Amino acid sequence: MLSKKEVKDIQSLGHKKERDVQHRFVAEGPKIVGELAQEVPEKIEKIYALESWAAQHEHLKKWTHIVNEFELQRLSHSKTPNQVIAVLQQWPQAAPVLKAEFCLYLDAIQDPGNLGTILRIADWFGIKYVVCTIGCADVYNPKVVQASMSSIARVRVYYDDDLSWIKKQILPIYAATLDGDSTFSKPHTGILIIGNESKGVRDELLKLATQKITIARRGEAESLNAAVATGILLAQLLT
Amino acid sequence: MLSKKEVKDIQSLGHKKERDVQHRFVAEGPKIVGELAQEVPEKIEKIYALESWAAQHEHLKKWTHIVNEFELQRLSHSKTPNQVIAVLQQWPQAAPVLKAEFCLYLDAIQDPGNLGTILRIADWFGIKYVVCTIGCADVYNPKVVQASMSSIARVRVYYDDDLSWIKKQILPIYAATLDGDSTFSKPHTGILIIGNESKGVRDELLKLATQKITIARRGEAESLNAAVATGILLAQLLT
Repeated sequence: MLSKKEVKDIQSLGHKKERDVQHRFVAEGPKIVGELAQEVPEKIEKIYALESWAAQHEHLKKWTHIVNEFELQRLSHSKTPNQVIAVLQQWPQAAPVLKAEFCLYLDAIQDPGNLGTILRIADWFGIKYVVCTIGCADVYNPKVVQASMSSIARVRVYYDDDLSWIKKQILPIYAATLDGDSTFSKPHTGILIIGNESKGVRDELLKLATQKITIARRGEAESLNAAVATGILLAQLLT
Repeated sequence: MLSKKEVKDIQSLGHKKERDVQHRFVAEGPKIVGELAQEVPEKIEKIYALESWAAQHEHLKKWTHIVNEFELQRLSHSKTPNQVIAVLQQWPQAAPVLKAEFCLYLDAIQDPGNLGTILRIADWFGIKYVVCTIGCADVYNPKVVQASMSSIARVRVYYDDDLSWIKKQILPIYAATLDGDSTFSKPHTGILIIGNESKGVRDELLKLATQKITIARRGEAESLNAAVATGILLAQLLT
């Protein structure tokens, strides 16, 4: 039986303010919880799972608390809760020190689904660091965790509150814009800036760019979704 | 003042069954309504808008019914209604006759956001036809319309209920899979099959494929979002 306090604490993790205070976050569903348990076992605090899931995950027993469907629904941030919810401790975010990596820099990506999808893309292309301006969604938002499909455990996210980190970087900086060059070299090292869903990359960051790049357009859509554009540009820059 | 019946009719357009009966759909927000009014004016039946929006769109006056914020909220399928909602007639879906085009074929893309985003991508790359299997989301779902960012007015969508359309095609057929070739030629003509978000392309369709293709992976994510994968592959095939 879950205590009222326990339910309330977990529900409250839907709010950034509470996440910041508790320094915890939630992950939902068998795929993501399974992968997080493998990637960052030391961060798992507790797992709330249906008996059927728990029976198949004996090795996670020490964290697992069995709940019924009704309790799972109360804990969940999703309309259709899926077998298991984990509560994890957040990990420290250190400013990445770049040598010859390729790194993503996100300027106010507000939609949690976009941020999570971008982390998944970064992970696909072997990018280890994603740096966000303060206007970006919170990486521990349940929707970000969900959309990242557990890539959140492999890609390190750092918030560059005052742009001081980006201003110190010496790698080539590419900015994704609608009026950039659609042909560019494949540098395999550098920083790609992706701008806000409606406003694009802010002027202050555009000024830091070595090159503005874009995706060749053959049709009439005015723009592409920010995550889609990230995927296409990374494929072009890195493969 | 809106009648109860009018409100109910419009609200009911959130359901596919009702959309099929009424043969109508809704579009929300100034950007999408503005573009649909430009692209398919003959399909607009009625526009419900705040006075401020109506004042700036005098040329749409004959369709516009002014509502207050409370009424707009009642009509909207979105949590945060945005100035204007239009009701439009659906248009007929004819089976595309391909000559030397490039065409997308979607196998059970269930998420409306993904389907809308894919229509936007198709429109960006100048693709005129998107063919869907019956397991795909409904193109007139409000979330599809929203995510398409009005590309729904430019890209023709056809539902190939029993796969009979695809079986008759003679263009090269590329199927996106996780185990395909990551290098392939740029054909500028053909059909690209994108599979269901979790199951991929069904066997029956894989058998029709001329070539299975994939996106080179450098990192650890198991897969990419279906819309992101569509964008990357189209960029590689067409630009």
